[in-house]
Amino acid sequence: MNSGSMTTQAPEASETHGCEACCPRYHEAVELVGKRWTGAILYVLLHGGRMRFTEIAHAVPDLSDRLLSERMKELEARKIVERHVSDGTPTKVSYELTDKGRELAPAMAELKQWADRWLD
Amino acid sequence: MNSGSMTTQAPEASETHGCEACCPRYHEAVELVGKRWTGAILYVLLHGGRMRFTEIAHAVPDLSDRLLSERMKELEARKIVERHVSDGTPTKVSYELTDKGRELAPAMAELKQWADRWLD
Repeated sequence: MNSGSMTTQAPEASETHGCEACCPRYHEAVELVGKRWTGAILYVLLHGGRMRFTEIAHAVPDLSDRLLSERMKELEARKIVERHVSDGTPTKVSYELTDKGRELAPAMAELKQWADRWLD
Repeated sequence: MNSGSMTTQAPEASETHGCEACCPRYHEAVELVGKRWTGAILYVLLHGGRMRFTEIAHAVPDLSDRLLSERMKELEARKIVERHVSDGTPTKVSYELTDKGRELAPAMAELKQWADRWLD
């Protein structure tokens, strides 16, 4: 009963089929990065490296501390940002992109280029 | 009183200064593309070419007609999407990305690649 094996497809084949319409993974990614303030926070961390909470707040004007704190928790839960707590007193908390976060750089660079070309 | 003219800067110089923190144009772009459902609609139009309203609705499941209509109007106002109305009765309405919209392709492709690599 192996006569059907010639038509066996790799798992990827059926998984990517849905991408002909709207790919759920892409959809998740674009709404994650595009969530209010998240894109700006990622941009700042990408260019600033490891940063203190107040440094991020300073680099993203008009963003309240409450909302920044919420976003940082979301990004940490998504493993896009890593939170570091220093030894010693007082402890110092800083944030840094993980590999997963840093690999958003090409997408952000392309979007930046588009923005520079097309937005006023 | 023209002695100060030596220090005159091109408008770009001061405008781009803010990019050391978070670039306002990039911020605008990421929130535009990342607005709920907009990223999915753009993805569908990029791969589908000129499409009827119902075709877009079909390709983006879970999106209500009301919200799709709202998003299409926003994208049209932003000159990212062009609306075509055919001659004849009944008229047929279709939508297509403009050059401005199509040039989002590289950013979307990079984000898609990231999503495939990092999201489940």
